[in-house]
Amino acid sequence: MISEKKGAILILSGPSGCGKSTLLKEVYKEINDYYFSISTTTREPRVGEANGVDYFFVSKEEFEQDIKDDNFLEYASVHGNYYGTSLKPINKALEEKKLVIFDIDIQGHELVRNKLDSIVTSVFITTPSLKVLEDRLNSRNTDEKVVIENRIKNAKTEVEYFRDYDYLIINDNLEEASKQLVSIANITRVKTKLFNKDMIVSSWL
Amino acid sequence: MISEKKGAILILSGPSGCGKSTLLKEVYKEINDYYFSISTTTREPRVGEANGVDYFFVSKEEFEQDIKDDNFLEYASVHGNYYGTSLKPINKALEEKKLVIFDIDIQGHELVRNKLDSIVTSVFITTPSLKVLEDRLNSRNTDEKVVIENRIKNAKTEVEYFRDYDYLIINDNLEEASKQLVSIANITRVKTKLFNKDMIVSSWL
Repeated sequence: MISEKKGAILILSGPSGCGKSTLLKEVYKEINDYYFSISTTTREPRVGEANGVDYFFVSKEEFEQDIKDDNFLEYASVHGNYYGTSLKPINKALEEKKLVIFDIDIQGHELVRNKLDSIVTSVFITTPSLKVLEDRLNSRNTDEKVVIENRIKNAKTEVEYFRDYDYLIINDNLEEASKQLVSIANITRVKTKLFNKDMIVSSWL
Repeated sequence: MISEKKGAILILSGPSGCGKSTLLKEVYKEINDYYFSISTTTREPRVGEANGVDYFFVSKEEFEQDIKDDNFLEYASVHGNYYGTSLKPINKALEEKKLVIFDIDIQGHELVRNKLDSIVTSVFITTPSLKVLEDRLNSRNTDEKVVIENRIKNAKTEVEYFRDYDYLIINDNLEEASKQLVSIANITRVKTKLFNKDMIVSSWL
């Protein structure tokens, strides 16, 4: 049996309210061997947060050592706490031939494309229109008005970059959009670039 | 509702005996709006053959006029009869925004990529090894020994070109291989290149 030779990366971007988290749950039901990239932080865990689930919680010293060792895809300091995307769990997952899934913005997408030497499949997810996004954000009733306004502003900017992605999912119908995302996830591992040519050809001698 | 703006092409290649036809049947159950490319010929229909199903049957005059009009992707004359792939039904289907599916060899794949100005997704399908292919061809009991030998020789040559394709499906397990091909077919229409950027962005103003 010839199996895939490498890990791969799946990037999802799209405005808050587009339904990414809901769609991802459908993907997790269908595929195995994935690692969902989470951030590393030096801030204290809040009640209910678990290490390795919500964040990797590390000490300031550890974080700064990893900065020196060039172990971050990106990082920032916010209100005296560090937040960043550590390359260590990502590289480990790729070595284990897993599918590494990122839920990141358009800048993150560009960083991953430029900094990681892996086969990337990327998906931009949107609502059918700005109006639908506004309605969804308002009906959630969880965010302050200024937060919603900021999200809408970002959404308008981000949608201009959808052509930098491989696929566009317009989340109009949850069942259809799930099918599309699950299909994309299913075939990230059968891209010809992931197979070792010599290995395939040698099974045909 | 923003819909796809263009037709698209799905190419399948792979040796006789790899299971392409069986896998395609699963695709047809799942997707709509496709056109499976069939050949045009000047030979007489055999018993049970239908126009538009097995071939497009045309007169020699009509075929030669289409040659003059540059209406063929490729054509050949075999034992005094013409066989070819007419661009007319293909272009019609693309205009109707359908998915045009080709079951063609590696030369055909190259021709379509070079001659048709459409977004192409291509899949190379194989058995897990040459041994499995030989066993399948022999167990069919339908082909002469010399035909089988020729198919095996072609298979060995063709597999060297799998990296020219987007995806490699190793048809080891029919259920798994079907899922992969159906997934590929499902997402041919959500490639960002198929969407009109202005149209998408304008729904976000």
